[in-house]
Amino acid sequence: MPDRLAELRQHLSDIYDLRAVAYLMEWDQSTYMPRGGAPARARQTALLEGLVHERLTDPKLGRLLEDLRSYEERLSYDSDDASLIRVARRDHERAVRVPTSFMSEAYGHFAQTYQVWMEARPANDFQAVRPYLEKSLDLSRRYAEFFPESEHIADPLIAEYDHGMTASAVSKVFADLRAQLVPLVEAVTSQAPADDSCLRLQYPEAPQWEFGLDVVRRLGYDLARGRQDKSPHPFTTMFSIGDVRITIRVRERDLGEALFGSIHEAGHAMYEQGVDRGLEGTPLAEGTSAGVHESQSRLWENVVGRSRSFWSFYYPRLQAVFPEQLGEVSLDTFYRAVNKVQRSLIRTEADELTYNLHVMLRFDLELEMLEGKLAVRDLPEAWRERFRTDLGIVPSDDRDGVLQDVHWYWGFIGGAFQGYTLGNILSALFFEAALQEHPGIPDEMEQGEFGTLLGWLQQKIYRHGRKLTADELAQRITGGPMRIEPYMSYLRNKYGALYEV
Amino acid sequence: MPDRLAELRQHLSDIYDLRAVAYLMEWDQSTYMPRGGAPARARQTALLEGLVHERLTDPKLGRLLEDLRSYEERLSYDSDDASLIRVARRDHERAVRVPTSFMSEAYGHFAQTYQVWMEARPANDFQAVRPYLEKSLDLSRRYAEFFPESEHIADPLIAEYDHGMTASAVSKVFADLRAQLVPLVEAVTSQAPADDSCLRLQYPEAPQWEFGLDVVRRLGYDLARGRQDKSPHPFTTMFSIGDVRITIRVRERDLGEALFGSIHEAGHAMYEQGVDRGLEGTPLAEGTSAGVHESQSRLWENVVGRSRSFWSFYYPRLQAVFPEQLGEVSLDTFYRAVNKVQRSLIRTEADELTYNLHVMLRFDLELEMLEGKLAVRDLPEAWRERFRTDLGIVPSDDRDGVLQDVHWYWGFIGGAFQGYTLGNILSALFFEAALQEHPGIPDEMEQGEFGTLLGWLQQKIYRHGRKLTADELAQRITGGPMRIEPYMSYLRNKYGALYEV
Repeated sequence: MPDRLAELRQHLSDIYDLRAVAYLMEWDQSTYMPRGGAPARARQTALLEGLVHERLTDPKLGRLLEDLRSYEERLSYDSDDASLIRVARRDHERAVRVPTSFMSEAYGHFAQTYQVWMEARPANDFQAVRPYLEKSLDLSRRYAEFFPESEHIADPLIAEYDHGMTASAVSKVFADLRAQLVPLVEAVTSQAPADDSCLRLQYPEAPQWEFGLDVVRRLGYDLARGRQDKSPHPFTTMFSIGDVRITIRVRERDLGEALFGSIHEAGHAMYEQGVDRGLEGTPLAEGTSAGVHESQSRLWENVVGRSRSFWSFYYPRLQAVFPEQLGEVSLDTFYRAVNKVQRSLIRTEADELTYNLHVMLRFDLELEMLEGKLAVRDLPEAWRERFRTDLGIVPSDDRDGVLQDVHWYWGFIGGAFQGYTLGNILSALFFEAALQEHPGIPDEMEQGEFGTLLGWLQQKIYRHGRKLTADELAQRITGGPMRIEPYMSYLRNKYGALYEV
Repeated sequence: MPDRLAELRQHLSDIYDLRAVAYLMEWDQSTYMPRGGAPARARQTALLEGLVHERLTDPKLGRLLEDLRSYEERLSYDSDDASLIRVARRDHERAVRVPTSFMSEAYGHFAQTYQVWMEARPANDFQAVRPYLEKSLDLSRRYAEFFPESEHIADPLIAEYDHGMTASAVSKVFADLRAQLVPLVEAVTSQAPADDSCLRLQYPEAPQWEFGLDVVRRLGYDLARGRQDKSPHPFTTMFSIGDVRITIRVRERDLGEALFGSIHEAGHAMYEQGVDRGLEGTPLAEGTSAGVHESQSRLWENVVGRSRSFWSFYYPRLQAVFPEQLGEVSLDTFYRAVNKVQRSLIRTEADELTYNLHVMLRFDLELEMLEGKLAVRDLPEAWRERFRTDLGIVPSDDRDGVLQDVHWYWGFIGGAFQGYTLGNILSALFFEAALQEHPGIPDEMEQGEFGTLLGWLQQKIYRHGRKLTADELAQRITGGPMRIEPYMSYLRNKYGALYEV
């Protein structure tokens, strides 16, 4: 059996490495590649993706996994070997459902769609991208049909990002959350909005960059195994457990953009850096789902990075870096500014409270499109209608409306949004559990110490990689399934105090 | 036939792309990769190199080339298709000689050797790297034995870099050159050395960086299809004709390092950028040999970049950037400084005249090692002896002696050095031919115009990529084989005037 296992490990290691190389090409394309490199890069990325798919669907892999079944059954569920075989089988069985020719067609189409969207968005030209989006919807539905046992057509797409989740489960969670969230948003936004003008002064790029790097280093992002670069859209990527990189963008008249961008991405990156070294080069060496991943970026960005404890420590330091801009601004004013609640048009700039409304409306529109109830041509109007209903404002154009997010324009429609709100819910669930075990965490944060929190997350979540699913993590950490109560109570406490509601 | 040709093109395009991806990984490793990324990067690079070798030696490729033989014979030698088939066959036939298992063993060993050398050089510890070098020599000899028809054991290694060249041909050229060069070096170094203290003042990094970039942009390096980054050892790499990058290093107390580094690497890069776009993704889309490549870096760096015409235009501009350092330094003093001749220990810092002596002694030592006349354990002493004889100075330690160049410590011993001096010889041969057609080139350079020269090189050399060999280029450009006379006459004129000898 060790021989077959070694063969399996080698096969999976090649898949891991080919994927890592594809990630490196994407990182380079977003950071340093000259524009002349684009055509060959598209060709090279497609080649690598083809090699990954070929190996993932290789019948040899299927036979290896079959031969290892009895070995797997003798092992404990949590063991590295059993987990490796289990997760590799799950990936293989999903991959073989979808013909390679279909994936090539789909990725070729998505690459075109992305190019068209890149020009259509600044031009506010939904019509230009509409036929592409129609084909993307068609491809998404055809993709789902390769999994005919699914209860809902969106389920196979959701499973790609959040294994174990279904349209019906997400809809239920979102309905419960909405019922409690909307009144809170109403109450808060009926108060006078916070003054965040102190964030909109002129902040030179270099000290912003350095301050953010200092913060994430102190939080625990290991720069010997990572680095920070600039890109138009911030992201985290990894080429091994020893090389997990983040990118951010810097705006000289928006102090929050780079700072919270660094913390958010470092949250993702610390998760990837924290995977057990023994899992390197295997499909287990990755965050387990979009929701759990987002729980870490949002936990560090919001629960930690927008907390009063955090700023008790960091605000004097930030003032020392920007004495002209912040010297006369009180900690209280600054704390309110970074937690300003406001009904707004752009998801990525939304506050903690309204952010989830942005996510939910996208999720609902995806389901309607996949179910055939909403045609792509009616999407812009449906978008405006939902904004009117859910947020009480309406985008004046499609640029800040239906064209704002890249997600629908670079891949399948469905699956890519629910993780953001699941992440918010999980961030509070996990943080509450950490506080129960270590009530001193907020005091430590006031001293600029984050090691207890990071150590707890590392022990409970990060080290497992994909060995445990989101559900299994929630079960083991809290003794029960995912619940929204810790999140709602976190929001009520924080924003209740801030807005006296 | 078009079907088989299309199959061949696809097969070769995959090889090109896999190699490009490996180059990207190397570029990243030398520029931005955090040190924690090293172990996985080694694994990933080996994987990609394995895939390249697998495809290059694929029997299917052999059959395609066989099937295309009659088609090839109906085409003109210079046609793209005939050249593609001819060069692909040459690469394939060389590759299949060497078993994949041997190449894996060799590259695994070289990776280790490089790591050991990285620590051994600063520690001045030749003994630490000696057993590795002994194995490298053994591997080099075994590699050569896969080509039993060779006249000299070094020939297969030389052919890897300079197709068409042999140990005996190079030795002959070098002997002729030495006979004329040594008296010139004697005469020049018997004069008082130039004063280059103006280059050793404090020059801040940022304006050095910008000035060099401005220069290479004006020479013709297209930054929409390239970029400049920092690395410990300068190099040029390319991922497509649309993405050819250079790296340099900057020293604040050595104005020449970054500036001439940029020009040198841009010379390599303009060659790669100048390959006909129709050859993209084929084995023809590359410089044809180490010698011709080096002829371009050395032509732009030395023949252009250290000429009086060049500095007539650029020196006032450089003075404007560094008024404190250069405001009082005359053009004549500066021109002498950048052309200072001096017997020195380090090849990469050597002047135009003595540089070739550094190359020849390495080439000779390589031959002696490969012939079994010189044991690795005696190499440091042989190195010192040759320095005493050829340059009249002796390195005080191995760090600046036998350990100085990476070449023997990251690959086979043999083949990697002769190209530097062949490049010098070819740079003058080509420049003389360009001047014969366009005598106005020096006047244009005085006006900061380099388009006529670049256009000529583009037309005569760059666009062909690997379609024509070094010999064929020399034949077509000059009507005869490579000759050393233009180079010697260039050196005699330039240094005769500078040193009044």
